[in-house]
This record gives sequence, C-alpha cells and structure tokens, in this order.
Amino acid sequence: MWAKTIEWLGDKARLIDQRKLPTREIYVDIKTTEEMFGAIKNMLIRGAPAIGVAAGYGIALAALKNSDKDYIRNKIDLIESSRPTANNLFYVTNRMRELLKKDDVDVSMLVLEAISIHKEDRELTEKLGKYGRELIPQKAQCMTICNAGALATGGIGTALAVFYKAKEQGKEISVFVPETRPFLQGARLTVWELKKNGIEPILIADSAISHILKTERVDAIFTGADRIAANGDTANKIGTYGLSLAAREHDVPFFVVAPSTTFDLSLESGEEIPIEERSPFEIIEFRGISIAPKDIRVRNPSFDITPNHLITGIITEKGIIYPPFEDGVKILK
Amino acid sequence: MWAKTIEWLGDKARLIDQRKLPTREIYVDIKTTEEMFGAIKNMLIRGAPAIGVAAGYGIALAALKNSDKDYIRNKIDLIESSRPTANNLFYVTNRMRELLKKDDVDVSMLVLEAISIHKEDRELTEKLGKYGRELIPQKAQCMTICNAGALATGGIGTALAVFYKAKEQGKEISVFVPETRPFLQGARLTVWELKKNGIEPILIADSAISHILKTERVDAIFTGADRIAANGDTANKIGTYGLSLAAREHDVPFFVVAPSTTFDLSLESGEEIPIEERSPFEIIEFRGISIAPKDIRVRNPSFDITPNHLITGIITEKGIIYPPFEDGVKILK
Repeated sequence: MWAKTIEWLGDKARLIDQRKLPTREIYVDIKTTEEMFGAIKNMLIRGAPAIGVAAGYGIALAALKNSDKDYIRNKIDLIESSRPTANNLFYVTNRMRELLKKDDVDVSMLVLEAISIHKEDRELTEKLGKYGRELIPQKAQCMTICNAGALATGGIGTALAVFYKAKEQGKEISVFVPETRPFLQGARLTVWELKKNGIEPILIADSAISHILKTERVDAIFTGADRIAANGDTANKIGTYGLSLAAREHDVPFFVVAPSTTFDLSLESGEEIPIEERSPFEIIEFRGISIAPKDIRVRNPSFDITPNHLITGIITEKGIIYPPFEDGVKILK
Repeated sequence: MWAKTIEWLGDKARLIDQRKLPTREIYVDIKTTEEMFGAIKNMLIRGAPAIGVAAGYGIALAALKNSDKDYIRNKIDLIESSRPTANNLFYVTNRMRELLKKDDVDVSMLVLEAISIHKEDRELTEKLGKYGRELIPQKAQCMTICNAGALATGGIGTALAVFYKAKEQGKEISVFVPETRPFLQGARLTVWELKKNGIEPILIADSAISHILKTERVDAIFTGADRIAANGDTANKIGTYGLSLAAREHDVPFFVVAPSTTFDLSLESGEEIPIEERSPFEIIEFRGISIAPKDIRVRNPSFDITPNHLITGIITEKGIIYPPFEDGVKILK
C-alpha cells in the first residue's frame, strides 16, 4: 500500500523518483554517494526526514567504496552540501561523523548505522501519528501543505501520519491540500498518497488557502517541518508562513508535526535558519514549457519561517510541545 | 508599445488571445455575440474592466446582426451569463438595457455606446494612474497580484496604471509579481506587460508572498478589483485576501485600484458577492499535462473577498477613498 520512498538493497539504495509522480511510478537505483547527492539536490527524493535517511545511505555507499576515513569524511561533506535547510540532514551527517571518530569503526558499522537511522525514522512516524490523532474529531476536515507523508519520510509520514493513524481508529477525514508551487508536492504527491491510503484529498490552489479557511469548517492544520529553532520558530515549505497567518485569522489550530531530529536547539530563533533559494527555472518553466518571459528577475525561496506565536503545538515522537516552546523543548533532551 | 487588448474594427472586435501570452501574440476576430460570450467565459479576454468593454462590443455585434429589441435583449442576457463576479460586466449590460428602453434607439446607437464605453475606460485608467502615483516614493518597490494592467482594461490598466504613470514622472519602480495560479496571469501577463513598458517585474510563487513581505522592503501593494460593495469589501482574484492579511502583518499599505463602475453600491457588504467556481481541470492539468490524479475533489474559487478593514484606500477615477468607505463612496454618486 505504501510507496517505497527509499529502500536499501545491500549495495545500493532504491528510490521512487518523486518528480515523475503521480503519472509514473519509476524507481531509480542509487549506487554512489555522488548519485545520492544529485538525487537529494534535484529533489528526486525530498522531505526533511527522507532526506536524512537518504543521506545515511549516501554515506554508507561511500564506506562500501572506500574505507578510508578521510575519503568518507569528504563524502559526508558532499552529502551535507546538497540542501541547506532540512535539519534532519545535518543530524545524520553529524551522527555519521561521530561514529567515524571511533577507533574500531569499520564499513559495516556505517552501513548498519544508516539502516538504524531508517528504522528509527519508520518507528517514530508511527508515534507522531498516534500523538497527533488525539487532536482531531471523529469526523474531521483538516488542511496540510506540501507533502509531509510517507513520501517525505522513511515511514508513514509526519503530518500525514496523523491522518493515517486517525483513520485506523475509524475516524473519517478529508484534507484540503494546497498544490504547493512551484514543485507541486501537494498536487502530485500528497493527493496521490492520501487517495491511495483511503483519505479524501481536496485539492486547492495555494492562493485559495485563506478563502477556504474563511468559508469552510477546517478543524485543524498539520504541517511538517524542515528545521525548528529552540524557541519553536519553524522552517517549512514556502507558503507555510502565509498559511499560519490565515489560520490565526480564522482561529484554526495550527500544528507542526516533526521528529526530534528536526530541532536545531543550537539556534535561538528562526532568524538563524538559512533559507534555500532555488533555480528561477522552477518558476518560469513548467516541464520545459515557458510560462513567463525568460530574461526576468525571479525570487524562489523554497522555505519560510513560521514564528512560534502562530503555532498551536509541535507534535514530536516524545510528546506534544505547547507554548512556551523554550520550556517545552526540554522533553527532547 | 501597448498590447492591443481589444480593438473595434467596425463590424467585428479583435482581441489578443491572452491564453497564448507570453509565448505567442495571437489576435482573434470576434464576429458574433456567441463568440464574444465564449471569449469571456474561456478567458481569452479577462480583467473586470476589459470584460466590460468586451461585453459592450458583444452587444453591438448582436445589434448589427438583428435590430429586433427582444433579440438584442436575449443576447444581453447571454453576455451577462458569461462570468458572475466582475461588476463592470453588469454595469455595461445594464447601460445597454437602459439605452434599449428608448423609443428611438437604432443599431448605430448601440455600436456608438460600446465605443463610448471603451473610450471612457481608456480615459479613466489614465486618471487612476495619476491619483495612484502620488502614493509611491521616487524609488519604489511594490507588489501586485494577477493582471490589473493594460491587458485587463481598455486602457493602461488599473493597478499597473499607477506604475506606468509614476514612471512617466521619472520614478524608478520594481514590482513583485505573484504568478497567480491557476491561470498564471501574473507570470504570463503582468511580467510580460511590465517588462514591455520598462518597469522591472520580480516574479515569485503565490506562496512566497508572506515571506517576501516579511523579508523585503515593499512600499505599497496595488491590486485591481472585480466588484466592490458599498462598505469597501472587495472581490478580486483568488489570493488577494491572503495578500491583504500578510500586508497588515507587515504594515504594508494595501490599495485597491478600480474605476467607479466596479462598485456595486446595491450590496452592503462582500458577503453578497457571488464567487465564481471554475473547472477543476484548471488545477489538475497544465496545458493538457496531468499534475494531479484526475478523479479527485477540487475546489477552484476564482475570487475571494478582502474585507474593508484590510484595505488602506481605494483609488478611483474620481479620487482616492479612505475608510470609513461607507462615507467615502459618496463621491461616486
């Protein structure tokens, strides 16, 4: 039933090419660290937790090729440079660097570590879903943004895990899904994934979010996260900040759903989170078709920061954190 | 220099097919009322004032075909059913109906009326621009949404007229342009039109609006309008309401620019304005390419309502109206 977002096959990783969904289900075998770097950078795989899992396997592939520690460290640096915002990526690269410091480390330990990271991710998505599902009524109409589902993790998702676990309880759920330009993760991935798993998606344009929250009953909003600062400020897909402003205006609870590895407690606030700016061609072309004149200025920030005061709660595998988040994050330590 | 949005050629109207821009400049000759109905409905021509001008010529074409008053009245009904939100459409159909009530009306009077409507529209866009340009500094960074330009009127635009007239004064202006899904009027039309007229557009995804207003200096926002109620509540392109929420959050002045024909003073508030819901295929397909599974629920409201309390001022050809708008609209009578 679940999409095989990422699979380890002993000497290579197999990814579903998310750029081709939903029209085609194509799997790609990744055999080198460089290929994994490209897959992350070019968004063949995306979603903060899934990027973390992919990074782990990317480093395992380096170790399988050459057991020299400096070689592996270089490849960790390469993987780390693939995308700048998702904290889960740095969590994994740091964990691998720590492991590499041990005297008796060998290749198999790095591979096993990557497999462990994947397994942990799978398990914690179940927990996220269980905590989150208590927040929604028996018959619920919710909203999300981007894809924080099975396709974004090594398990059943973060935000979408809430819906999947609520459905297991017999709850009846429909979910407004903004298409999430420019990469259309909502239209292409979330709609496909929810439908495949028996939850009704209702697709809308990103620009319709505020109107829908004003004119429809929406019980709660659940989003994923790419990085969360110690004060609760949350980096997530561009558009999340606007969504949170509209949620406050219409008194709709706004929940972030993320594993503890998404927190970067070294950062006091969201001001310090780097925001990835992606290629203008993501906006001025659609699958090779020009939709705007080519020689123009474009701003294409891929993420934005939702300030803590607009967040009702943050659902982690260790429990739900409520404001003040500075205190709440202590459960993560 | 200006696009020929709509031109009257004596026995037919010529439109630029806005669905083909910016990659192709194709002109279409409209010879019957039915063709004009289709052109408006299918958004070959769009923008509230331009729809009004097109409606006038559509009715003129009916009169040229058959001078029977009942025949013409039927065709006015047809034209009126093309799109439900833009008030300028109803302004024109009502004006034609009034004219038709006269005893001595003949075909040439209906044609001349359509030409007058066009001429008036052209003249008032100049006035809108002149009033609006006083609101922006010598070197300004602004934002708009959708296309409220020459392509949306019989003249130089509503919101964009402000930039064009400011440029004539020697002001230096760049404009953030959200792409405006699903129809991409921002990316396809506004960027093209601004660039063609020497003003620098900066294209962004709709979802980047809040982030840009938070992180960049934006001096003011100017949008068009499809219908304005007596209390100032304004129907405009879907996404305008969300834009106004973000504007308030970041203290950016938010101006609506619209001719007095956009006001529907019979409506007390925006609650009474019908919101057009367009085809799901505008969202699930892009030029025939599927971007989401086909058999899903979609909500595609084409407009939303910006409540009066989020609007700094409304620029009309008779002057700028400030809150309380209930009082201010008296200048229109």
